[in-house]
Amino acid sequence: MPNSRPRSRAGTPNGTATISSIAAEIGVSVPTVSKVLNGRADVAPETRARIEEALTRHQYKRRNRGPATIGPPLIDLAFHELDSAWSIEIIRGVETAAAGDGVGVVLSELGGKHRPQQDWLDAVLARRPIGVILVLSSLGQEQQDQLESRSIPFVVVDTAGDLPAGVPTVGSNNWAGGLAATRHLIGLGHRRLAVISGPSDVLCSRARIDGFRSAHDEAGMAVDASLIRHGDFYVDGGYQHGRKLLARPDRPTAVFAGSDMQALGVLRAARELGLEVPRDLSIVGYDDLPLSGWIGPALTTVHQPLQDMATTATRMLLDLAHGDTPALRRVELATELVVRESTAPPPGT
Amino acid sequence: MPNSRPRSRAGTPNGTATISSIAAEIGVSVPTVSKVLNGRADVAPETRARIEEALTRHQYKRRNRGPATIGPPLIDLAFHELDSAWSIEIIRGVETAAAGDGVGVVLSELGGKHRPQQDWLDAVLARRPIGVILVLSSLGQEQQDQLESRSIPFVVVDTAGDLPAGVPTVGSNNWAGGLAATRHLIGLGHRRLAVISGPSDVLCSRARIDGFRSAHDEAGMAVDASLIRHGDFYVDGGYQHGRKLLARPDRPTAVFAGSDMQALGVLRAARELGLEVPRDLSIVGYDDLPLSGWIGPALTTVHQPLQDMATTATRMLLDLAHGDTPALRRVELATELVVRESTAPPPGT
Repeated sequence: MPNSRPRSRAGTPNGTATISSIAAEIGVSVPTVSKVLNGRADVAPETRARIEEALTRHQYKRRNRGPATIGPPLIDLAFHELDSAWSIEIIRGVETAAAGDGVGVVLSELGGKHRPQQDWLDAVLARRPIGVILVLSSLGQEQQDQLESRSIPFVVVDTAGDLPAGVPTVGSNNWAGGLAATRHLIGLGHRRLAVISGPSDVLCSRARIDGFRSAHDEAGMAVDASLIRHGDFYVDGGYQHGRKLLARPDRPTAVFAGSDMQALGVLRAARELGLEVPRDLSIVGYDDLPLSGWIGPALTTVHQPLQDMATTATRMLLDLAHGDTPALRRVELATELVVRESTAPPPGT
Repeated sequence: MPNSRPRSRAGTPNGTATISSIAAEIGVSVPTVSKVLNGRADVAPETRARIEEALTRHQYKRRNRGPATIGPPLIDLAFHELDSAWSIEIIRGVETAAAGDGVGVVLSELGGKHRPQQDWLDAVLARRPIGVILVLSSLGQEQQDQLESRSIPFVVVDTAGDLPAGVPTVGSNNWAGGLAATRHLIGLGHRRLAVISGPSDVLCSRARIDGFRSAHDEAGMAVDASLIRHGDFYVDGGYQHGRKLLARPDRPTAVFAGSDMQALGVLRAARELGLEVPRDLSIVGYDDLPLSGWIGPALTTVHQPLQDMATTATRMLLDLAHGDTPALRRVELATELVVRESTAPPPGT
């Protein structure tokens, strides 16, 4: 992977360093450098930090690309959190593409963290997979350096933050999704719209809200800032915000939710308050999980091609692992509005 | 693992055979036997079959339990099919227990098959995990022999069929779940009940239907055989059977579904036919997925402790992998009825 950071520290960052030259430079044995490269725990933290620093400074890259396993090659798939049918769509996409190539998939959950912990990365380094796929999480620069020096490529599905240039990413057009959902509601006659998105530090949430704003702008409508909410992507986030939004005397007539699970929470909040969907309230979801077509009322939602995104990310990773340059390093698949039963003109029209 | 099958074939089934003695006996080289043990593809099928036969006949067990990977140990987790939030509950349970022990989880899907294909097993043999967890699928005797000769223990979550004695299994009490659900409906006054279960060749489906029958027996009620249906566990199975059952002039007043997903399908069928749940029709689900409390009406369902089952299976497997004898080899966790909004007395009462 290209690394575009300026190099200001001492050293010969030309990729010609070897394990021996690095060991000699910092006065440790060759096996000690090897241990660090292979994620072994039995190296003193201070020594380890010095070795990592030298590996990064010299842009060391492991040349022996052979996997650590005797058996079939592995890729590591890490989720910030495993939850709901959303994760299953991604897993199926990765599993299908990997199995077709005879590659096993090691699954990890990062305990809800958008930045993996070092112990997870140590396990990956020790496992020596041919590549890593991160879902809704991203690596710190130091962690990226560690994968790079071991020649383990990685790809990010969706973006949880501002990734540096050069990090291969597969996402979907969140801004266009937000725009299409909001245009649909405005087109039905809604003039008071709320949006519940994901956490504000997750880039896709911001993109969808920007799409929501743009649809207002083009219709000459102002956005009421108090109707913009951030929550997690799960049912309870939708429920809690739904209760608050819908209990207001000036409640919105339509809610654009950040996920189908959130939309389920808004639906429940509406039922509890005696509001009928779509007669009294329109709801648009996001993702188009299989579920969204089955519940009552079936959800109008933004289709996000999760399986395709996962398959694309896996193929990109396999290309990188085989030393090929993928055709594209940043792919954004199209989102599409699917109109079902949960949206209608606002009450009184 | 103990193997209780009678041994009638020739040989010295006392576990003292070595790779060398087996190679000498059938006239192949030692590396050829090693290749077969390690799931390598480059051995002629006929030679391979002869080697497998000799390994089984001699009850050969690999003594070197060291993993094939330099890195952290792995376990293989195989689903007959990855679908819905059901799989996620299992994955989370396995992942949590394995991560606590520093063990990575390799996930596979068996393409809807309840008996794994040989190419999956070859990949496992080559990967040399410390153990295998199968979900809703079971191994043929020959496949069990192959894992045994490589000293790779396996545990089955739920039972998809009649497993031979000695196969470690974690399930839940399906019969009691069927009994509790049906008793609840009969207690509400229902006299015409339908059941939609899983495929008839999956043992848990039969156990639940037997519980359904027993509840009828103890109430002195006859079971109408035409109201017993088998489908897959997914939404569409519930929808298709629901449409047919509810369109009958003598339609049931209550349906006990084989899963929460199936219950979602029955709910949709009821809506399409203008039936209101629970006023016109009561529905009981199975599993108690997080979703079931959120949809409208919230589902009355049988709680199946999926995460606990997965965690228990993983701990059992880790015990076996460490050479310990687990306290129990067949564990059945309790199921429990959770009453929510989808059940009520039948219409006209």
